Amino acid sequence: MSDPTDSVKIAVLGCGTVGTQVVRLLLEQADDLAARVGAPVTLAGVYVRDTTVPRDAVVPVEALTSDAEALVDSADVVVELMGGVEPARSLILRALAQGAAVVTANKALLATHGAELYEAADAAGADLYYEAAVAGAIPLVRPVRESLAGDRVTRILGIVNGTTNYVLDEMTTKGLSYEDVVAEAQRLGYAEADPTADVGGHDAAAKAAILASLAFHQRVSLDDVYCEGITAITPDDIAAAKETGRVIKLLAVAEQADAGVTVRVHPTLISADHPLAGVRGAFNAVFVEAEAAGELMFYGQGAGGAPTASAVLGDVVSVARHKANGGKGPLESNYARHEVLPMDAAMTRYAVRMSVPDRPGVLAAVASIFATHEVGIESVRQMAGRGHAGLILSTHRATEAALRATVQELRETDAVNDVWSVLRIEGEA
Amino acid sequence: MSDPTDSVKIAVLGCGTVGTQVVRLLLEQADDLAARVGAPVTLAGVYVRDTTVPRDAVVPVEALTSDAEALVDSADVVVELMGGVEPARSLILRALAQGAAVVTANKALLATHGAELYEAADAAGADLYYEAAVAGAIPLVRPVRESLAGDRVTRILGIVNGTTNYVLDEMTTKGLSYEDVVAEAQRLGYAEADPTADVGGHDAAAKAAILASLAFHQRVSLDDVYCEGITAITPDDIAAAKETGRVIKLLAVAEQADAGVTVRVHPTLISADHPLAGVRGAFNAVFVEAEAAGELMFYGQGAGGAPTASAVLGDVVSVARHKANGGKGPLESNYARHEVLPMDAAMTRYAVRMSVPDRPGVLAAVASIFATHEVGIESVRQMAGRGHAGLILSTHRATEAALRATVQELRETDAVNDVWSVLRIEGEA
Repeated sequence: MSDPTDSVKIAVLGCGTVGTQVVRLLLEQADDLAARVGAPVTLAGVYVRDTTVPRDAVVPVEALTSDAEALVDSADVVVELMGGVEPARSLILRALAQGAAVVTANKALLATHGAELYEAADAAGADLYYEAAVAGAIPLVRPVRESLAGDRVTRILGIVNGTTNYVLDEMTTKGLSYEDVVAEAQRLGYAEADPTADVGGHDAAAKAAILASLAFHQRVSLDDVYCEGITAITPDDIAAAKETGRVIKLLAVAEQADAGVTVRVHPTLISADHPLAGVRGAFNAVFVEAEAAGELMFYGQGAGGAPTASAVLGDVVSVARHKANGGKGPLESNYARHEVLPMDAAMTRYAVRMSVPDRPGVLAAVASIFATHEVGIESVRQMAGRGHAGLILSTHRATEAALRATVQELRETDAVNDVWSVLRIEGEA
Repeated sequence: MSDPTDSVKIAVLGCGTVGTQVVRLLLEQADDLAARVGAPVTLAGVYVRDTTVPRDAVVPVEALTSDAEALVDSADVVVELMGGVEPARSLILRALAQGAAVVTANKALLATHGAELYEAADAAGADLYYEAAVAGAIPLVRPVRESLAGDRVTRILGIVNGTTNYVLDEMTTKGLSYEDVVAEAQRLGYAEADPTADVGGHDAAAKAAILASLAFHQRVSLDDVYCEGITAITPDDIAAAKETGRVIKLLAVAEQADAGVTVRVHPTLISADHPLAGVRGAFNAVFVEAEAAGELMFYGQGAGGAPTASAVLGDVVSVARHKANGGKGPLESNYARHEVLPMDAAMTRYAVRMSVPDRPGVLAAVASIFATHEVGIESVRQMAGRGHAGLILSTHRATEAALRATVQELRETDAVNDVWSVLRIEGEA
């Protein structure tokens, strides 16, 4: 710990969009930060691979260095904004081993190597903060870890990827196809040239692993997360959702029941009245159900340089305050030992949309297939005006395994022409 | 600080709805709490005025005591849930003076005597936490104080009183009168027999003072808050709001501009698209605008025994962790010295709804009155079908003083029969 009168030295690793904004805020708000930390906060340096590349004028040229290890060794607080696994992992471990505090926005690293990093932080008695890794600017890690520390979180439903929310929102409000919206999003810079990490659900899955670990006080890694993207969603799915008073969102779902924990990412039907349904464009929101607190929601910008930098700076102030005044943030709690269940054991409700022949006895035949697999039917709705005899069956809660077996049999019977789509329903009793 | 192997002793002052739930959670979740705190957490006792009154079975009779001072003196953490100013204030000061940490849900006390309590906590180096005082279960104090510690909050718009939100929501969705909804709310137990503190805006004003102090890093007390309740809102106001695509919410508004800080509570027009517009029934939500983070919203239950107890327990875990492991939460920051401006200097937009004679030249006469006071007109809308020649003028941003002078002159001119209502507009550019 530095002498209280000393400054707290901050090393920034990586100087992309977020890194640049972090440097700007550190320098512009130095007086405010000093007041909040209780000691001056200074920039020890900024690691970049190539110091000769031209950069935003807010980053002082003399702060740039390509020697990451020397920079880490000189700092009280290391802010890791490089992304990727290496060299981020090694540099974070090096910082922690020396007792430096670490702030990171690296969701991929935490979702795959979180256990190793948390253990290194615990062993060193050093802070490891990562508010920016889950939902950009939205304060979420701190509320879940600290404000709900006397409560039990039972379920989290999160819109944690702005690109997919933008795509689904445009499809819903403008009636466009998936392909058209993605092409437009790429043109506007809202989607990457290769959008797989977003539209495939992988980015959301990494965040789901971090959220579930936090909420349920145990290690959940990316491998534990079932992941299904939005590439198969059609305008017909969107229209059918609307007919039943619902919208489609890509949700990260983490649930804790007696049998264990399930963590999954998939396109989901939610009621148009649900607070998550109104989350527009590239915004993120996380809906939390806790035993005593009831329903909570956290809403805000999930990405972008300045919003992400705000979350990083909040963490920097916390850990710098510990450096200046003693103390330490809470340990990453991992005392719980719930089984992480396979997707087959996940329980939820489903909407199965299918085309059936227009003859007597069809509904009875379909219903008996659901009954065989003990999947209760909650409602049946005929879809008209699309040139098909369409049915939407909404089920009661059933396991994924039972639903899958039901759909398999529906695909084989001549009472069904085609199963168009199967979507999970969340957020309803 | 107690020895790490010792238990952390919690005294609960007050055993109403919230106190009972806090005791229940402390006892039921003792193992989880011990894991989160890093030491056992035990109940030192529960102060009640009369130990012979029958109570909920979750409260152990042997824990009850009517000797508040002896109980405070025996505790590491004092949880104050009595409400009111005295004896709460004296007992909190007594606890802090001994270095005990204090957790309180007492918004009235903080809004009127906050400065004294924060200073006592600082002087003693003791924690004073109050998450439950602002918006019940919603984690708000911690995110604003810590997650946004590297950012600048510019504006807060909060639905922080569930009773008034319920009343306005019922008026909006069912077209009922204020009087009918309040009577029904009283019958259902959603409103007090004397609802003045809620419907007059006073409860919201106390929370606004606490929120503004937090967000702007300076002392703001209840006396600084302009307060106007919902008792004058009519079904015509609600209908007129709907015609312009808006809804009416009782908002706590705290703004920081170059000239200074304004803090106010009043019925407010917000766009039906605004995230706050969808906050239904007795839920609370706080919308925060920050320079780097952009727009954030926090949503959840603002009252009730179990939700409020969840917020209290989150604080108990934080301060108990400090007791067990060393360290201390952030000081209440009060380094900023912005002027708190009088209501006359507040800048916002307005919707002025009035009845005018049906003759040529009236609009020109009305418009020239607005122009005299330099209040820009953004739009004019004629209201039809109500047996009056009704006008709604929406203004550009203007000071409250200019608007008040305008309305005064409108009331005096014969170009206007009657000014029906003046409502402030928030959350639009």
